[in-house]
Amino acid sequence: MRGLDEPEIIRIFQETLGNSEFVPEDIESFRARREKVLVKADTMVQSTDIPPGMTLKDAARKSVVACVSDFAAKGATPRYGLISLNLPKKVSRLQVRQIALGIKQAASEFGIKILGGDTNEGMEFVFHVCIFGTGGIVQRRGARPGDLIFISGPFGCAAAGLEMLQRERNASHKFRRRATRAFARPSTRLNFGIRIRRYLTSSMDSSDGLSTTLNEMAEQSECKFMINTIPADSGVAEFARLNGINLDRLVFHGGEEYEFAFTVPKKHSSAVKRNAHLTGTPVLEIGYVEMGNGVFVERSDKSVRLPDMGWRHLI
Amino acid sequence: MRGLDEPEIIRIFQETLGNSEFVPEDIESFRARREKVLVKADTMVQSTDIPPGMTLKDAARKSVVACVSDFAAKGATPRYGLISLNLPKKVSRLQVRQIALGIKQAASEFGIKILGGDTNEGMEFVFHVCIFGTGGIVQRRGARPGDLIFISGPFGCAAAGLEMLQRERNASHKFRRRATRAFARPSTRLNFGIRIRRYLTSSMDSSDGLSTTLNEMAEQSECKFMINTIPADSGVAEFARLNGINLDRLVFHGGEEYEFAFTVPKKHSSAVKRNAHLTGTPVLEIGYVEMGNGVFVERSDKSVRLPDMGWRHLI
Repeated sequence: MRGLDEPEIIRIFQETLGNSEFVPEDIESFRARREKVLVKADTMVQSTDIPPGMTLKDAARKSVVACVSDFAAKGATPRYGLISLNLPKKVSRLQVRQIALGIKQAASEFGIKILGGDTNEGMEFVFHVCIFGTGGIVQRRGARPGDLIFISGPFGCAAAGLEMLQRERNASHKFRRRATRAFARPSTRLNFGIRIRRYLTSSMDSSDGLSTTLNEMAEQSECKFMINTIPADSGVAEFARLNGINLDRLVFHGGEEYEFAFTVPKKHSSAVKRNAHLTGTPVLEIGYVEMGNGVFVERSDKSVRLPDMGWRHLI
Repeated sequence: MRGLDEPEIIRIFQETLGNSEFVPEDIESFRARREKVLVKADTMVQSTDIPPGMTLKDAARKSVVACVSDFAAKGATPRYGLISLNLPKKVSRLQVRQIALGIKQAASEFGIKILGGDTNEGMEFVFHVCIFGTGGIVQRRGARPGDLIFISGPFGCAAAGLEMLQRERNASHKFRRRATRAFARPSTRLNFGIRIRRYLTSSMDSSDGLSTTLNEMAEQSECKFMINTIPADSGVAEFARLNGINLDRLVFHGGEEYEFAFTVPKKHSSAVKRNAHLTGTPVLEIGYVEMGNGVFVERSDKSVRLPDMGWRHLI
């Protein structure tokens, strides 16, 4: 089969995204509402990030979610996107259409306008997304002793889903469906993040693994993070036991969860919970901040250091 | 050899770029001087864009040049960059350092501040660059009958260089050096583009091939472009003859030249030439704009249509 050329690919994207009046230009532009422009780039690579059971449509959508997730964690609003694709030589019209549909879905979910992009030939599919936005930013540093530590939702389900897509694993039919869906079609807490921004002292996206996130926040804030609740999603502990997988690995080190961790002064914790209720966000209080350094988990009678063992590319 | 992990790679970049005070954040930001923010993304893929004889340092620098070239064509100023890398699992410290050096070189050449980026594992090297800037924009459409057509420099040398890197070709030692250098270390006419912006009626980057550029400008401007001068770089015609290559293919369809084509009302042509002289830019007047459509080259007594046969990925 003959491959598609770039104008055909652009046409499929224009048709799918509904930009039929689009006039190609060398450079795209947008107007910033405020002076500060926020930018985030993220790349999804087939051989690293897209297991065989995942559709191109879901992968393309998720490549946008990965950027939006950082806006959610910072309480900022994503507005515009540039999408650059590497496509293998033999890419089909149907595949390009699926990718465009995934991008479109994410764009309408999060209110992002796709400005344009770039297509290139490569050895594998690579979706490169750059999102521009506006708003304030909650930094990674800023947690203070006495603050409470929250997460925007439970952990371990997406990592379990990835396990199932990569190899034979035991799981109930129901949990299998929920977990693979959590991996392939993650959501992100954008509205919640924007609503609670002003109450937070620090915040960070957790998609590289909760242990990485908590250690980075503790280090940048120069505080100790004490974790007294293991934020395991329902069904994850049973899945870990059934398959002889360490529960911590799924919950703290697995990554792929587009949630975020944040710290809040005690006096604002009820405002956070009220906004969680209003937006249907399953927040969980998992610990508190102290003087000191590092991240510790309270287990039985002693506290054990939680090492930074999240996702590291290229190891 | 054990690969490098992401923090090590980031450290090499920080050391090389001299951002030692850099604090990692989920999202980068910059302040726009004007309301309008200009954005351009471009991707360089090893299997498509980096022939074996090209160094990683040159490739990394060129990935930035590819974006800057669009700013030059539009007369706009590039200011900030995000760099995202796909690196193969076995990447070495030296290779990462070479890439960082290439990025650094381009950043200082063009006055761009690198805000941050992203690293991922992939099957091959991919350098994804996103540049943000400010300033006005000369559009691709806007040429009017009576305008003169210019190019910012001669064509065919970089395409000849690519030929030499890809296969055995006859060439003088001197031309070989000049051509491979034109391919591997292209320059771009940023200062010139910014200076002449206000005189231009249309302008477009030509790195996908001059025939593609001229056809796109003619189509968007709804005019006919008449070309009366073949803008072949010195030595290119001889190289084409020696190796039995069609000269048009190198000059009009080869691409890889980070020049731009633009149209100017006659009354402003002396201002353009004056600025070319001041910035050392070898501009060439190659034709004029008429009522009608398409691009035609005047050869002997007749004019022949110049088809759009520039670089098309994925064919």
